[in-house]
Amino acid sequence: MEKGPLLLTIAVLGGTGKEGKGLAYRWAKAGYKVLIGSRSSERAVTTASEIMELLEGSSSLVGTSNLEAAQLAEIVVVTVPYSAHRETLESVKDVLKGKLLIEGALPLLPPKMTKVQMPAAGSAAQEAKEIVGEGVEVCAAFQNTSYELLLTDEDVECDVLVTGTSKDARTEALRLVEAAGLTGWDAGPIENSVVVEGLTSVLIHINKQYGTTHAGIRITGASHNS
Amino acid sequence: MEKGPLLLTIAVLGGTGKEGKGLAYRWAKAGYKVLIGSRSSERAVTTASEIMELLEGSSSLVGTSNLEAAQLAEIVVVTVPYSAHRETLESVKDVLKGKLLIEGALPLLPPKMTKVQMPAAGSAAQEAKEIVGEGVEVCAAFQNTSYELLLTDEDVECDVLVTGTSKDARTEALRLVEAAGLTGWDAGPIENSVVVEGLTSVLIHINKQYGTTHAGIRITGASHNS
Repeated sequence: MEKGPLLLTIAVLGGTGKEGKGLAYRWAKAGYKVLIGSRSSERAVTTASEIMELLEGSSSLVGTSNLEAAQLAEIVVVTVPYSAHRETLESVKDVLKGKLLIEGALPLLPPKMTKVQMPAAGSAAQEAKEIVGEGVEVCAAFQNTSYELLLTDEDVECDVLVTGTSKDARTEALRLVEAAGLTGWDAGPIENSVVVEGLTSVLIHINKQYGTTHAGIRITGASHNS
Repeated sequence: MEKGPLLLTIAVLGGTGKEGKGLAYRWAKAGYKVLIGSRSSERAVTTASEIMELLEGSSSLVGTSNLEAAQLAEIVVVTVPYSAHRETLESVKDVLKGKLLIEGALPLLPPKMTKVQMPAAGSAAQEAKEIVGEGVEVCAAFQNTSYELLLTDEDVECDVLVTGTSKDARTEALRLVEAAGLTGWDAGPIENSVVVEGLTSVLIHINKQYGTTHAGIRITGASHNS
């Protein structure tokens, strides 16, 4: 991964939740400028300070509103709970043109967390694409990752499958996966997001059936060097 | 796994294709009575002889029509191509009551093999359940396995996710996974079949992107002994 001044600015919307915090921490550590977005700017500022305490002083990480974070960033990552995902996207869609949106929200409908239940669009990522419209590339990623581990610098034993509206968009998202210290795979077109998102219900089911809390997946039989 | 006279009889419909052949070989080797079914009884008999040549003499493996195989078996496994799956199920559904049906067909629509495209029912397994009706338990399994390896006794580096209409049905299907020398996981209700079936499109995409032919998945962070 290229480091230095060419690194892009990443907005993490819903970055005060545990999902977003771990990713923001890893990206700031890798040298990206990271903007933590939240409905409450104050909470975003508090979270940014908390993460800064875990980081070297040279990292760049700022808390602000979701809208300002999305405005100032080249890449916008959505880690809000699914119940807030439409409202969040509606609130920022006017500033997303020409940018890459990475959808991390999971269409889990409590209490049936172990059963795949997708929205009419087919997946949260396809729904996001419908909301933000033309001129915005959309990827799905980071739904199956155990975020607590990200904040502890521990190895995460779960690969990240990345789907998206174009090969360029997936390549860009895969750079962020690698920057977060994770192993990512180009998992194909946005229509494949149902697999990536639905896999989380399968993993939650496996957690319950086999008495664990951190079931994940690894891709076998393929390598990044071939 | 329990061996001996209590082992059930398994029908492998479409068992003359490479998908079914590998499974039939492994199950016969594990001591199950296996019936190879085909639209053409002659082809089924030929395939059964071919497989018997690879097996010890004590194995029980017979070729016959799809209907007779389904009639005589306690467990019916469907490994026909998706284009023949409805016709095959319609032809045997009257003899399936009280039995377990394992759907191995994949809703892949050429030429877009790398893009998830599910039938209106949600998945091939849910479609199978609609066709066979009440009184038949349905599981999805074996969609992501490289069947060539099954015939060679080699280790298959890809776990098998099993979804199904009840926990008992999944437990029964998981016994067959284990008997075939594979590692299986209870992946939840039949609604999760979209993940299991769709994963194959993702793996085909990964094969193309990363220059391999046998991408698979492993479940991490969980164990069968917990």
